[in-house]
Amino acid sequence: MTKIDQRIESMLEEVLSDAALKGAPPRLVEALRYAVFPGGARVRPRLSMAVAMACGGDELDVAAGAAAAIELLHCASLVHDDLPCFDNAELRRGKPSVHMAYGDALALLTGDGLIIRAYQVLATACQSRPDRLAGLLAVISNGVGVPGGIVAGQAWECESDVPLAEYQRAKTGALFAAATMAGAAASGADPEPWRKLGETIGRAYQYADDILDSSGDPMVIGKPVGNDAALDRPSMVREMGQRESAEQLRQLVREAADYIPACPGEMALKKLIEAESDHFMQLALNCRAAA
Amino acid sequence: MTKIDQRIESMLEEVLSDAALKGAPPRLVEALRYAVFPGGARVRPRLSMAVAMACGGDELDVAAGAAAAIELLHCASLVHDDLPCFDNAELRRGKPSVHMAYGDALALLTGDGLIIRAYQVLATACQSRPDRLAGLLAVISNGVGVPGGIVAGQAWECESDVPLAEYQRAKTGALFAAATMAGAAASGADPEPWRKLGETIGRAYQYADDILDSSGDPMVIGKPVGNDAALDRPSMVREMGQRESAEQLRQLVREAADYIPACPGEMALKKLIEAESDHFMQLALNCRAAA
Repeated sequence: MTKIDQRIESMLEEVLSDAALKGAPPRLVEALRYAVFPGGARVRPRLSMAVAMACGGDELDVAAGAAAAIELLHCASLVHDDLPCFDNAELRRGKPSVHMAYGDALALLTGDGLIIRAYQVLATACQSRPDRLAGLLAVISNGVGVPGGIVAGQAWECESDVPLAEYQRAKTGALFAAATMAGAAASGADPEPWRKLGETIGRAYQYADDILDSSGDPMVIGKPVGNDAALDRPSMVREMGQRESAEQLRQLVREAADYIPACPGEMALKKLIEAESDHFMQLALNCRAAA
Repeated sequence: MTKIDQRIESMLEEVLSDAALKGAPPRLVEALRYAVFPGGARVRPRLSMAVAMACGGDELDVAAGAAAAIELLHCASLVHDDLPCFDNAELRRGKPSVHMAYGDALALLTGDGLIIRAYQVLATACQSRPDRLAGLLAVISNGVGVPGGIVAGQAWECESDVPLAEYQRAKTGALFAAATMAGAAASGADPEPWRKLGETIGRAYQYADDILDSSGDPMVIGKPVGNDAALDRPSMVREMGQRESAEQLRQLVREAADYIPACPGEMALKKLIEAESDHFMQLALNCRAAA
């Protein structure tokens, strides 16, 4: 585990510690932690921190708070998305999903509680730089809210006519864009030039996820596969087939690094993004080969 | 409709306008508005604005933003609380509840979207006074989140052992406390002395609500009655009977005005709170008499 990984984990642990949650209903406290620990790859907060450092950020506490907020919002979306009225997914990160373990009511509240907690950690982290709070709040909210964030993305699934690109940008791309933009904003840089990088990584991630869903091994990825087809969900693989999806994924991964704006840590960030991309591209392509 | 009422409504309309939600899934946009308009009594935002004015607030835009955020969070909690996994309530404010009109999935997303929107409106309203954002965010989040806000209050319903006072303070009192405290914070006053007033009004409101639930007319109050008993919910009426609950309600209404801290508009606020309290006390006691 790198120092950055440790920083993210310890920030998340602090936010959901006994001290922070003192007096809360005990099962809710358990469910909140169950939804966040042990984590997945923490891709979004690590990306956000990497951008903050590449921007020469002197305020890594602010960046860590923003990264933790993004991860809490991501976890909240997974908990709600797994509920019976959406994906009805029984498994997440290799264990029963929150509603399977704690029931639908507590799962719903766990998601709500994590969303609110995300804003609390953001405000607390900005105590040393209150001038950065409003910008971070806006950038992160755009990634999760309405009109173009995760909530909108999930709501496209309730429409009869779904614009695939908008759906996927909202459901996946928006929070990746929030991650890169928040990293920049936490360091006092202009977030806007960082949008394209996040969106491109998000698109690549979406291709990888669709390929995994269509041909992955549930034991490896820790959640059920075949969901998109079973739930008649829009999916790149369903749209253009596995071969073309894999080609697009390769293309996006090559492109992504070109979208890194000029910044003090440009080269290091480029290397890191290439290494990360390679990792999930290999995972997806191995699954495709095995299918 | 007073000028304050108009200000709250127009702020809510702006937040959920076509312009603000451009590009979002159309049914989600409909559901978001359906959840907020036409409103109930808007008790919490009006209380918050009244406190802001009593504190001599010169920044009523900030106060209006905080008030709108509080109302959006309140509406979100109603939408989620009405879902089948909680109260399974078919009626709200005299019309089908959001999940009855739009389905469970969109109702869940509507609640999530309203929570995020609340933070967005707060940040936007604080553009003229960025120094007030962090304080308002903290005060309002305490009213809705974990450990002591609405989410915690609803989660107590999932525990076998429920401390009644804590449950009701979290489920109702906390957002009333947030309303009075946010009004003060929006005006640059110390919010802490305003907690007790909000909590006391919240307790009175809870007694009135329990009395209405046990003996009200669903056509008058716009939602089903008898829920507490049917769902085995903790309730003041079930705990101490109708007569004692009514006595407690009278007592709290008398007390509330005494908790107004010294401030420029103290007398006007006192009158306003007494008039409002009389209104809902009469409503509850008439129902009790009719039962």
